[in-house]
Amino acid sequence: MPTNRAIALAAHPVGFPKDSDFKVINLSDPKAGPNQFVIRTKFLTVDPYMRGRMTGVKSYVDPFEIGKPIAGGAVGEVTESNNPDFPKGQAVLGMWGWQDHHVSDGRDVQKLDPRLAPISTALGILGMPGMTAYFGLLDICKPKAGETVYVSGAAGAVGAIVGQIAKIKGCRAVGSAGTDEKVDYLLKECGYDAAFNYKTEKNFAAKIRELCPKGVDCYFDNVGGEMTDAVFANLAPFARVSLCGIISQYNLEKPDLGPRSTYATLLIRQARAEGFIVSRFMPQWPAAIKEMGQWLKEGKLKYREDILEGLENTPKAFIRMLKGENKGKQLVKVS
Amino acid sequence: MPTNRAIALAAHPVGFPKDSDFKVINLSDPKAGPNQFVIRTKFLTVDPYMRGRMTGVKSYVDPFEIGKPIAGGAVGEVTESNNPDFPKGQAVLGMWGWQDHHVSDGRDVQKLDPRLAPISTALGILGMPGMTAYFGLLDICKPKAGETVYVSGAAGAVGAIVGQIAKIKGCRAVGSAGTDEKVDYLLKECGYDAAFNYKTEKNFAAKIRELCPKGVDCYFDNVGGEMTDAVFANLAPFARVSLCGIISQYNLEKPDLGPRSTYATLLIRQARAEGFIVSRFMPQWPAAIKEMGQWLKEGKLKYREDILEGLENTPKAFIRMLKGENKGKQLVKVS
Repeated sequence: MPTNRAIALAAHPVGFPKDSDFKVINLSDPKAGPNQFVIRTKFLTVDPYMRGRMTGVKSYVDPFEIGKPIAGGAVGEVTESNNPDFPKGQAVLGMWGWQDHHVSDGRDVQKLDPRLAPISTALGILGMPGMTAYFGLLDICKPKAGETVYVSGAAGAVGAIVGQIAKIKGCRAVGSAGTDEKVDYLLKECGYDAAFNYKTEKNFAAKIRELCPKGVDCYFDNVGGEMTDAVFANLAPFARVSLCGIISQYNLEKPDLGPRSTYATLLIRQARAEGFIVSRFMPQWPAAIKEMGQWLKEGKLKYREDILEGLENTPKAFIRMLKGENKGKQLVKVS
Repeated sequence: MPTNRAIALAAHPVGFPKDSDFKVINLSDPKAGPNQFVIRTKFLTVDPYMRGRMTGVKSYVDPFEIGKPIAGGAVGEVTESNNPDFPKGQAVLGMWGWQDHHVSDGRDVQKLDPRLAPISTALGILGMPGMTAYFGLLDICKPKAGETVYVSGAAGAVGAIVGQIAKIKGCRAVGSAGTDEKVDYLLKECGYDAAFNYKTEKNFAAKIRELCPKGVDCYFDNVGGEMTDAVFANLAPFARVSLCGIISQYNLEKPDLGPRSTYATLLIRQARAEGFIVSRFMPQWPAAIKEMGQWLKEGKLKYREDILEGLENTPKAFIRMLKGENKGKQLVKVS
């Protein structure tokens, strides 16, 4: 029988998560009952929103419980089956999370076709991060050709895709990231028109004004905090802000203060800011995945993965992603 | 020949405006040239947005210049005319501002029909404040029957109308104001379902939670600052915020700080905040004025005016309006 490990919270992280906030636990060996099948996990994803679920406070999703396997997106392959719809070898996507195996009756997973794209893309560009970029930009910002789209956290799993979709739609794409290497990646691989390293730039607002001389029409915000203050100061009249994430605030131990003038900018520029959680667009995902898949085939969209091996290294992968040390979508290869 | 006085800025106010920031100046006596006519001002309006124009910094409208007559909404009557379209006695509305007379060729004024409503309403419920309430609520918030509409600065010229329109649309209307008397006015005259005095209430957020148990679906914000933080903490999922004004911030001498969690609420609740300036709806004003006029006739809409007499008292009227001492729309009766 295969060993069935999982990663659970050992404690609710305070401030930046650390290794000791997590522990490996052993689950009973997976067994397929009637109509069930066993999935061997191939890849796991670690994403910023998971930090919110670790605090023990109800946000838009329920908090993770201490001692229970951490849930999250995963892809795997059926290794044992009593369900004719999911034969041995079938690739599937689900939310079973940080564990070696999962037993399903088919209702909590979706089938994947490895001939269309590598199955790991179901956790990235053709999965939740890709859908977040697609709907957050197209449905919330509604960019028009010729407009300037600014992306904070632009080299992250979502941001790198937002800029590429902006270019497909005929916009100018500008972004910020945390290393010179990431800035190179944005400019040379993702087609961004301009980008800068916010860790070596003192005056964000002046830099954004320089790179977006006509102002920012669409702001895709992954970051919040001081970067957002600086972008708001550069919003064009009737700008649209798609608020996707606030990674600058996720690991703070105390509530942060910022200038109230940022809110006032919405009035002065007649701008709109809207927060979204990508699950609200779920009914439209299949059509969007099809369109994104087509762009991938045509070479209009590119992606990069940063893969750490071993289930036991999932907390490390999660922490390095929060620190922005990953280059491309952070995944864990489990088997 | 009539005396033609005007009020001008003597200095750009720093912090709260004071009498000495204004001065009376004498203009040349008004004379109607070919195709022109002279208007005798009847009523002037003082509105919160004017504070922004006094700082000497370009915002969404140009700043007022020291020593020049202060512009703003006014209604009056033609007293002398070389223009057959605007005969003696014709009532008109324009932006000529704080002065006894105005000379026009007809292009910068609109005709008013005193048989439809008292001409002072063109500065209030059937004018800019009424249009601000109408479009800010209906076009920005898009309230649905049964939803909860929260209004800050609810007893102001705009806020008192917002609650009444919310009731016409089948919503629950809740608001805050700065005296017990204003709260009474909201509850007894404007049809608000609930209201509270924010000057005697310590915990805004808890009070709003009590009065809006299902959360706030639509927030019409005239105030900003701590009130807005408290309302955001009570936003319902998919809430819409119409940002109309930020009167709590207009007279600050130093930039104010606030919790960044207010912005984060937009994400968690998938809410939308949009700033607007009512002039953008100008093409739709005539239809809206017609609908509001009908509601007035049917007794569905009520209004109150607070009238100070004498052009020289316009700065006093402006300052008391900023302090919230007015009861109903603050106007100045000039003649």
